[in-house]
Amino acid sequence: MTPLGIGLIGAGRMGAFHMESWERIEQARLIAVADPDERAARTRIARRPIDWYPDHRLLLECADVDAVCICAPSACHAEIALDAIAAGRHVLVEKPIATAMEDGLRMASAAHLAGVKLMVGHVERFNPAVGKLAELIARGAIGRVFRAHATRVGPLPARVRDTGVAIDLATHDLDIMQFVLGLDITSIYAQGSRCVHPSQEDMIACLLRFGDAGPWGLLDVNWLTPEKRRELTVIGEGGMLSASYLTQDVWLTESSGAPSGWSDLARIRGDAEGAAVRFALRRIEPLQAELEAFARCVLEDTPEPVSAQEGCRALAAALAVRDSAAHERPVTLLDTPLRRVDDLPAPPLMPVAA
Amino acid sequence: MTPLGIGLIGAGRMGAFHMESWERIEQARLIAVADPDERAARTRIARRPIDWYPDHRLLLECADVDAVCICAPSACHAEIALDAIAAGRHVLVEKPIATAMEDGLRMASAAHLAGVKLMVGHVERFNPAVGKLAELIARGAIGRVFRAHATRVGPLPARVRDTGVAIDLATHDLDIMQFVLGLDITSIYAQGSRCVHPSQEDMIACLLRFGDAGPWGLLDVNWLTPEKRRELTVIGEGGMLSASYLTQDVWLTESSGAPSGWSDLARIRGDAEGAAVRFALRRIEPLQAELEAFARCVLEDTPEPVSAQEGCRALAAALAVRDSAAHERPVTLLDTPLRRVDDLPAPPLMPVAA
Amino acid sequence: MTPLGIGLIGAGRMGAFHMESWERIEQARLIAVADPDERAARTRIARRPIDWYPDHRLLLECADVDAVCICAPSACHAEIALDAIAAGRHVLVEKPIATAMEDGLRMASAAHLAGVKLMVGHVERFNPAVGKLAELIARGAIGRVFRAHATRVGPLPARVRDTGVAIDLATHDLDIMQFVLGLDITSIYAQGSRCVHPSQEDMIACLLRFGDAGPWGLLDVNWLTPEKRRELTVIGEGGMLSASYLTQDVWLTESSGAPSGWSDLARIRGDAEGAAVRFALRRIEPLQAELEAFARCVLEDTPEPVSAQEGCRALAAALAVRDSAAHERPVTLLDTPLRRVDDLPAPPLMPVAA
Amino acid sequence: MTPLGIGLIGAGRMGAFHMESWERIEQARLIAVADPDERAARTRIARRPIDWYPDHRLLLECADVDAVCICAPSACHAEIALDAIAAGRHVLVEKPIATAMEDGLRMASAAHLAGVKLMVGHVERFNPAVGKLAELIARGAIGRVFRAHATRVGPLPARVRDTGVAIDLATHDLDIMQFVLGLDITSIYAQGSRCVHPSQEDMIACLLRFGDAGPWGLLDVNWLTPEKRRELTVIGEGGMLSASYLTQDVWLTESSGAPSGWSDLARIRGDAEGAAVRFALRRIEPLQAELEAFARCVLEDTPEPVSAQEGCRALAAALAVRDSAAHERPVTLLDTPLRRVDDLPAPPLMPVAA
Repeated sequence: MTPLGIGLIGAGRMGAFHMESWERIEQARLIAVADPDERAARTRIARRPIDWYPDHRLLLECADVDAVCICAPSACHAEIALDAIAAGRHVLVEKPIATAMEDGLRMASAAHLAGVKLMVGHVERFNPAVGKLAELIARGAIGRVFRAHATRVGPLPARVRDTGVAIDLATHDLDIMQFVLGLDITSIYAQGSRCVHPSQEDMIACLLRFGDAGPWGLLDVNWLTPEKRRELTVIGEGGMLSASYLTQDVWLTESSGAPSGWSDLARIRGDAEGAAVRFALRRIEPLQAELEAFARCVLEDTPEPVSAQEGCRALAAALAVRDSAAHERPVTLLDTPLRRVDDLPAPPLMPVAA
Repeated sequence: MTPLGIGLIGAGRMGAFHMESWERIEQARLIAVADPDERAARTRIARRPIDWYPDHRLLLECADVDAVCICAPSACHAEIALDAIAAGRHVLVEKPIATAMEDGLRMASAAHLAGVKLMVGHVERFNPAVGKLAELIARGAIGRVFRAHATRVGPLPARVRDTGVAIDLATHDLDIMQFVLGLDITSIYAQGSRCVHPSQEDMIACLLRFGDAGPWGLLDVNWLTPEKRRELTVIGEGGMLSASYLTQDVWLTESSGAPSGWSDLARIRGDAEGAAVRFALRRIEPLQAELEAFARCVLEDTPEPVSAQEGCRALAAALAVRDSAAHERPVTLLDTPLRRVDDLPAPPLMPVAA
Repeated sequence: MTPLGIGLIGAGRMGAFHMESWERIEQARLIAVADPDERAARTRIARRPIDWYPDHRLLLECADVDAVCICAPSACHAEIALDAIAAGRHVLVEKPIATAMEDGLRMASAAHLAGVKLMVGHVERFNPAVGKLAELIARGAIGRVFRAHATRVGPLPARVRDTGVAIDLATHDLDIMQFVLGLDITSIYAQGSRCVHPSQEDMIACLLRFGDAGPWGLLDVNWLTPEKRRELTVIGEGGMLSASYLTQDVWLTESSGAPSGWSDLARIRGDAEGAAVRFALRRIEPLQAELEAFARCVLEDTPEPVSAQEGCRALAAALAVRDSAAHERPVTLLDTPLRRVDDLPAPPLMPVAA
Repeated sequence: MTPLGIGLIGAGRMGAFHMESWERIEQARLIAVADPDERAARTRIARRPIDWYPDHRLLLECADVDAVCICAPSACHAEIALDAIAAGRHVLVEKPIATAMEDGLRMASAAHLAGVKLMVGHVERFNPAVGKLAELIARGAIGRVFRAHATRVGPLPARVRDTGVAIDLATHDLDIMQFVLGLDITSIYAQGSRCVHPSQEDMIACLLRFGDAGPWGLLDVNWLTPEKRRELTVIGEGGMLSASYLTQDVWLTESSGAPSGWSDLARIRGDAEGAAVRFALRRIEPLQAELEAFARCVLEDTPEPVSAQEGCRALAAALAVRDSAAHERPVTLLDTPLRRVDDLPAPPLMPVAA
């Protein structure tokens, strides 16, 4: 089988990760990179036999490119993706799908009509810790779920950022929380500020609700905490599930446990403690898994593992977070029929009357 | 100096802690305990020469009792405290000061007029980790403060509870956060539910604002998490301060640090990391420190270390938390002139128009 | 049933712990304390109805004393115990049983002839984490055992010490390791020094062998490490068992696990990782459990839970540790028939020819 | 400046790490790889313009190769290195320098006479955590040093191993401990066994002595512990230094601290606790730093950062570990004048008479 010809658009930090990951994937071959900064691009390419183009349109003229990965700044996602779709190329666009709902919907619609794949790079979907958490919740390991709590904090990253934490960080967890709970977010109350970043909000905390009177959510993202943490914790009737996105550890701590018989120690450790289990999990590099999944869905013509609709759903939630934080009011997300593109409504945000 | 004669009202779990702590305090002597359950009371008393009374009114007739500690259920605090004040006794009432604002205000007023001490047992004020955190913030160790985050979660405690987590747990942190930041809470948005408790809310998460456009707050309390945690973390311009209420560790992690030169490790540890310091702190048992402070303010006739006004302020915030959670709307706390009792306004809760 | 009358000999820090623990035990009553320092003793006694004696011989004249706890300095254990046995009293002597083998053997023999109980206070035997570890090893949870590793380090304690770390700390683990492995120590190589202590060795590390070509042992004790740790880890064919004596957590980490599929993370986390389990354990205060067990063996006339023979075995090992460290040579412990007192041989230490 | 031409001998797991690291180094270029397994080699090379040779002798005929990295099995190090030296090439040989002392000494001597560089790849020397530890000890951060404790344990790695843990793991720490303490090892007592490995010892624990009555050492290495740990802890008069080789964290915990005023908590946390500091350290990938250092010493004709003599010293210690473990006796290392090759004595191992 001829390997899939891949074109990479954007050779910044994210693009560099793509470049290294594609090298390890047998069924595809990275053959071209587009980036206005030639020097940066050539440094990334190093001694690999990969062509450089100053513009994504030139790259799209290259006949061997079957599919493109868009790692350009988020604000350019829509334009580049629409060009690639128009040129009949399959597209893997880094998250967020776009920076405006109408752009995301337009992209979804265009890909649908052109019959090409449009996958959104929500890389945490390919984190085995997330998969394990979703599986455990689905099979009732902690019974009825009460709350999901996501933490994605750390120092300001070195890479370029044209968006704030709502779009850059929160989209990850807004997508993952909906995915592992199997429920859509229905309402959001967020607070946040630009604390030290020159132009973007850099700290946001949100309270969420999933489904109709379903579990609560707590989301805490920032670029201020001096120690990097990426965690998801879900509390339910039977105990607590915790996953570290970074180390891919997944824990189950049971609620019902032996009551303590030592009062002094109980002041520190609690009046009862259940058993805890860390699962044996095969760790994998999520980005490599994502790229493999993209290549597979193109080669086998199967549905995208993360669809444009799901990308739009995460974007809608991220925009609602910003809206709520900006206006200090709860925001409701309509349960839009996002599954079918043609029916997609106008922007799904709506202020709630208190 | 004759030691202070102490009467203890309520011999449940909290009362038992008081009993043991008073034994270690030289300037006071526990001489009487009132509790309707004679058997329980006598078990707690064991072989100590302490009298038992079935009713707090009988205890108040005992001439040697100079001051009382109220460890009865929260709903009885007001009635007992008012009786004790009427009988001319100094009062240490466990937190919350009462379960209704008007009761708290009435107690404050009565003590003021009677010229007796009325102290509220916000025990975490006497936690040396809290004192260190407050000192570090005050002297600018992390510069401008952006957010405080309090976590008070763990399994359902074995002791009797006549109140939910808003009153039982959140009051601690609502008081401490205002204390360490030196600012009043101005608005609250809370969500929460009764998940497994037979009658009370057992999980609440709140977003707070301190002062006028001051720092944000995040408060997470429940009786569901299977592992006990009691922590306060404050993020500011220069770094992060963290305190564990349980182990009394206080950490400062600096924001500005060495940028990482190893990309693979940076994916786990972040792109930069500042230095971290755990301070050498003299650990003390907070309840014993609280009781000593109470004895001292009575014996030396100095202001109460935690005043009735501060107890009312914490109660007002806890009630606002419940109100917000019940009605799913943001609630504003008026900046009431709580410092002078006579001017205290009607209940300080008010729904905000979105 | 009349409660057992207890006399406490030695009111130092250890004696104070005994005093508090006996208060919580229903089937016994602490009625007398002997200590030459009247002021210290009376402070410990506080308001409890307990008599004070300046000398243990006077206490032994007290007819209500059925049994004594010896918390005096280790060097006095033998003399006091022999006096108590001669007076027909049951004896709980703090570990080490004595500071010389001949003393320990004499005590064992005297108690045997007098028909009184002589129990040694190896308190960690009553630590539920130790019991769980022993049970898991016995039922093959990690298969064939390769090594036990005990760590008992921390800052110099505040209490009085008339012995070095070999006797004061290592005796705990020398006893426990033999207990959980079900094998006697056969040889010891130790190194250690007096580093900062005015008169005693304060750091020792030993390599041990259990049984005949059985598992290895590693023992690390000191009063120098600035952070307190008390841990026991056992590695076997199927995985690792770890217990914290302090928090009473017991962990099982399995050896066979999922091989890692992510090379960069594997550099930090290893090429494979098995599942890990923390057991739900009912925590208890080990000293209280020890005192209860002592009272029970007296009241029910059952064998001592920790016999004088076991106390002698731990002492023999501790003395071998000192001998090896002093002479920088391996030392062999003869497999003495310690089980029957009358056959006990002369000191069981013997230098090995290299 | 023409970049240094590098030839890599051995394309196993270690060779693959070299290959990736050389790609990131500007002043050198990897141009040829020798490995008998063509398929494996070509997979590692992927699309890079690098030549493959089935035999290191063919690679050495390649005129553009200025220097070679030897990543072949340890038993082949000597033969390959001597061939490379004879061909006038600079040599970086992975640790251990060889598997027999006479080989190591022969290599050192040959390189000396040929005037080429011979560096040994003790990669932990380039770990910034090690450098920081050495610097802190040198400048007296913990005063007089009492003991160093190295732990290098974890599950059996996936890579091929032709040697046991003494040579494969312990050489790292035997070198690093001597380096950070600035003292040679003078005596060793080791115990260990082959537990599950088909042919090699897989668990060793050693007690060491540094210098003449200098600090003690404790070294614990195995392929059995299910969780990977790589740590070095040094205790001294003023406190404890700890480094994690994996995360490159370095901690200083001070000995003198605030005495605890809370007895119940002190049972868990100790009677006193000093301040602790984690230093802000610029993390780097040690292998890349090693390769850069090698390239620099060749290009600038400066002494090798890790000399053949130091490689021999580490090997001598590792062989002594095996000797001691095999014969269960203490072994003394003569303080050989290892600094000048020509004077190097016969194997420096000697059994001690007990």
